Amino acid sequence: MLFHVRMDVAIPHDLASQERDKLVAAEKARALELQRAGKWPHLWRIVGQYSNISVLEVDSPDELHQILSSLPLFPFMRIEITALTQHPSDLAAQP
Amino acid sequence: MLFHVRMDVAIPHDLASQERDKLVAAEKARALELQRAGKWPHLWRIVGQYSNISVLEVDSPDELHQILSSLPLFPFMRIEITALTQHPSDLAAQP
Amino acid sequence: MLFHVRMDVAIPHDLASQERDKLVAAEKARALELQRAGKWPHLWRIVGQYSNISVLEVDSPDELHQILSSLPLFPFMRIEITALTQHPSDLAAQP
Amino acid sequence: MLFHVRMDVAIPHDLASQERDKLVAAEKARALELQRAGKWPHLWRIVGQYSNISVLEVDSPDELHQILSSLPLFPFMRIEITALTQHPSDLAAQP
Amino acid sequence: MLFHVRMDVAIPHDLASQERDKLVAAEKARALELQRAGKWPHLWRIVGQYSNISVLEVDSPDELHQILSSLPLFPFMRIEITALTQHPSDLAAQP
Amino acid sequence: MLFHVRMDVAIPHDLASQERDKLVAAEKARALELQRAGKWPHLWRIVGQYSNISVLEVDSPDELHQILSSLPLFPFMRIEITALTQHPSDLAAQP
Amino acid sequence: MLFHVRMDVAIPHDLASQERDKLVAAEKARALELQRAGKWPHLWRIVGQYSNISVLEVDSPDELHQILSSLPLFPFMRIEITALTQHPSDLAAQP
Amino acid sequence: MLFHVRMDVAIPHDLASQERDKLVAAEKARALELQRAGKWPHLWRIVGQYSNISVLEVDSPDELHQILSSLPLFPFMRIEITALTQHPSDLAAQP
Amino acid sequence: MLFHVRMDVAIPHDLASQERDKLVAAEKARALELQRAGKWPHLWRIVGQYSNISVLEVDSPDELHQILSSLPLFPFMRIEITALTQHPSDLAAQP
Amino acid sequence: MLFHVRMDVAIPHDLASQERDKLVAAEKARALELQRAGKWPHLWRIVGQYSNISVLEVDSPDELHQILSSLPLFPFMRIEITALTQHPSDLAAQP
Repeated sequence: MLFHVRMDVAIPHDLASQERDKLVAAEKARALELQRAGKWPHLWRIVGQYSNISVLEVDSPDELHQILSSLPLFPFMRIEITALTQHPSDLAAQP
Repeated sequence: MLFHVRMDVAIPHDLASQERDKLVAAEKARALELQRAGKWPHLWRIVGQYSNISVLEVDSPDELHQILSSLPLFPFMRIEITALTQHPSDLAAQP
Repeated sequence: MLFHVRMDVAIPHDLASQERDKLVAAEKARALELQRAGKWPHLWRIVGQYSNISVLEVDSPDELHQILSSLPLFPFMRIEITALTQHPSDLAAQP
Repeated sequence: MLFHVRMDVAIPHDLASQERDKLVAAEKARALELQRAGKWPHLWRIVGQYSNISVLEVDSPDELHQILSSLPLFPFMRIEITALTQHPSDLAAQP
Repeated sequence: MLFHVRMDVAIPHDLASQERDKLVAAEKARALELQRAGKWPHLWRIVGQYSNISVLEVDSPDELHQILSSLPLFPFMRIEITALTQHPSDLAAQP
Repeated sequence: MLFHVRMDVAIPHDLASQERDKLVAAEKARALELQRAGKWPHLWRIVGQYSNISVLEVDSPDELHQILSSLPLFPFMRIEITALTQHPSDLAAQP
Repeated sequence: MLFHVRMDVAIPHDLASQERDKLVAAEKARALELQRAGKWPHLWRIVGQYSNISVLEVDSPDELHQILSSLPLFPFMRIEITALTQHPSDLAAQP
Repeated sequence: MLFHVRMDVAIPHDLASQERDKLVAAEKARALELQRAGKWPHLWRIVGQYSNISVLEVDSPDELHQILSSLPLFPFMRIEITALTQHPSDLAAQP
Repeated sequence: MLFHVRMDVAIPHDLASQERDKLVAAEKARALELQRAGKWPHLWRIVGQYSNISVLEVDSPDELHQILSSLPLFPFMRIEITALTQHPSDLAAQP
Repeated sequence: MLFHVRMDVAIPHDLASQERDKLVAAEKARALELQRAGKWPHLWRIVGQYSNISVLEVDSPDELHQILSSLPLFPFMRIEITALTQHPSDLAAQP
């Protein structure tokens, strides 16, 4: 099942730059790992924002929560989730 | 170039049902045509809403406007557009 | 899987009262049917509102959309969906 | 009587991690105690958020306030309360 | 128990003036009746608005819903409810 | 004349607890004094919030401002004011 | 005492133009009358809006409500009221 | 002086199509006239919206209001105005 | 030309009280100076807020920006500007 | 292609003034460079705000993101982007 996820990142400016760099690197490593596992089929940067729009493919809402809440930047992200389903006008849905 | 588009449809309840049916059918035909042309790579229904989340691939913002403003349901849609770019953590962006 | 759903009903005041009554009766029949089927475990009225807060138990987001979009009052409802997961402090989650 | 409660937690990032851990553990202990006492019949985590949706069963609004304002994380929560009543389409309300 | 209630009235301008007058008169009669019964201890008009701020004293949220949903103008009101409790600085709460 | 006032308190978490206690005690003393003087006829706690809903009876908006801006917690409160007048359906307004 | 009032006018487009003209003329006549009576010392049009920003000088909130609710366009206006007091930096407030 | 203006057009769907066409044609003629007169130096369509973003160059706010309120579509537009001034980093502002 | 300006002041609570006092005194001195120069014809305190509503009379938007951005409290204010013009119902506008 | 960009700057008040000055100077240098390169054809200050409204001319959304995210003040700006296209009433669009 697919979930549309928007993540807005806001790292506090007074966080030590070393800790920030470590977090950002860990976030990237985790995002790559999840893409390789097929869990994160779409990941786009929003132009002009420290934000992404993603589509995650998971087995359950529980798995979605596990993935999101374990992201290294989770404490510094505002996350908005939208459940998706096949659109009746989707080419793949035509008989 | 990719644009993220959310379309919320609100057809006035006092529109003649015949006209409504015609519009909805025309909208579907146009959506399929645009998908076949490769202009509308992603089209999802939002669960529980008369709304979709889409990603369109166009040659310019001008083409995006031409496509959206010529949709049969355009007069009855609220449209929200977000420009996308490749995410630095996208698997496809890795060296 | 559980989804939290809030439904706010706004039937246009110029709808014929006969049609309104038919819709409301059909909505109630469908809600009872879905409760009997175990799909709608919680259904509460919000005090002072023509609104309900519900929890639905479904097999997938697809099924949730099928259920909601086939409700007789669907065209006149604003629906807000929140995906739920087990809380780590839930009594049932303790070892 | 039932009240629907949404709690969004935002612990300041500069709180000492020791104090944070103590607060979180105390919050969990109190939540379990209240569930055992039958005061907190439903407690769900919102997917992707440091938030819960709860239903509390209390004898009065006064008791609800006593419970909420004594939660260890109360100073760091945004709380939204909605009074509930039986829905006329609730299966349990049918004659 | 006390509930703070704000009611904003918006009668559609195309409602027949006769029907409007009947509704408004019935609303007033009902409001007076509820005040006499001790259920509606405070009722103020907001300056410059077709709105009131009220405090209702009821035995339960169920009774509050019964009262509000049976008001003649209920279909044309936006209602916002806030549960109240005694303030620790209330003179009446002092030992 | 009556003014409806909502006060939401947000004391910064990094304020020294001693200073906080002093402020809260001073606020309570002042609130009691104003109630005894007949200036603050209604003071309720909002359930689940560090907020109150009040009705103040003053001789002028100037006096209202003097009272509010001299509250010890004024620098840490968001205040929302609504002017009230007698409601035409108020029992006390009937001939 | 002074109140700052913003009025946004939205006359429904399907109101008969004759009725509209009558209302607008009556509104203007009443506004002039109130200015002559010293009750409406400031009346400005907001650039590009069918809205005004006004300052009214009245003896009480009751009088303010009487004035506003008797304006011919009252049923078609959204009104926002802000109570004013002398500013400590006002030249007229200096010793 | 320059003003940034955003205009969102919402013509009611039940307006006779003949009247609509007449209004739209008159609006276009007036927009061209104002551009030729140098009053409307920038006029862009927002992609996917029946909206424009404009910059008007006028002699005064009074003239801006005269221009905007006399546009044929004025009754059906939501207009948002922002006053502009030269930016200190504007190339043209450098010594 | 007249501009309506609302200024909401929010001085960070951790600013040294000495610096705060200096800023507030400088702000007052500047406000008096601008009133004496005829640039700031109206200055009111909003009841219960650390905010003012003002009307400034300037020769251009450029001058308005110069005045506002040079106020000592400018870095700590949220400012909202509305361009004004003469109202057709203004007594002074009658022939 | 043209994008309309609004940038609101909010530098934390506790940033060392030296670092702030360095950032602001670097921002200005970069803005001038981009204007000279023809990438930033319009740059206006919003009156009374630490904000600008800009129009950027870029070859792609990717380039727009590169430009914006490399601005020295990017970490302290809220950025809002609107894609533009030629307006059918633009003088330059007439045959």
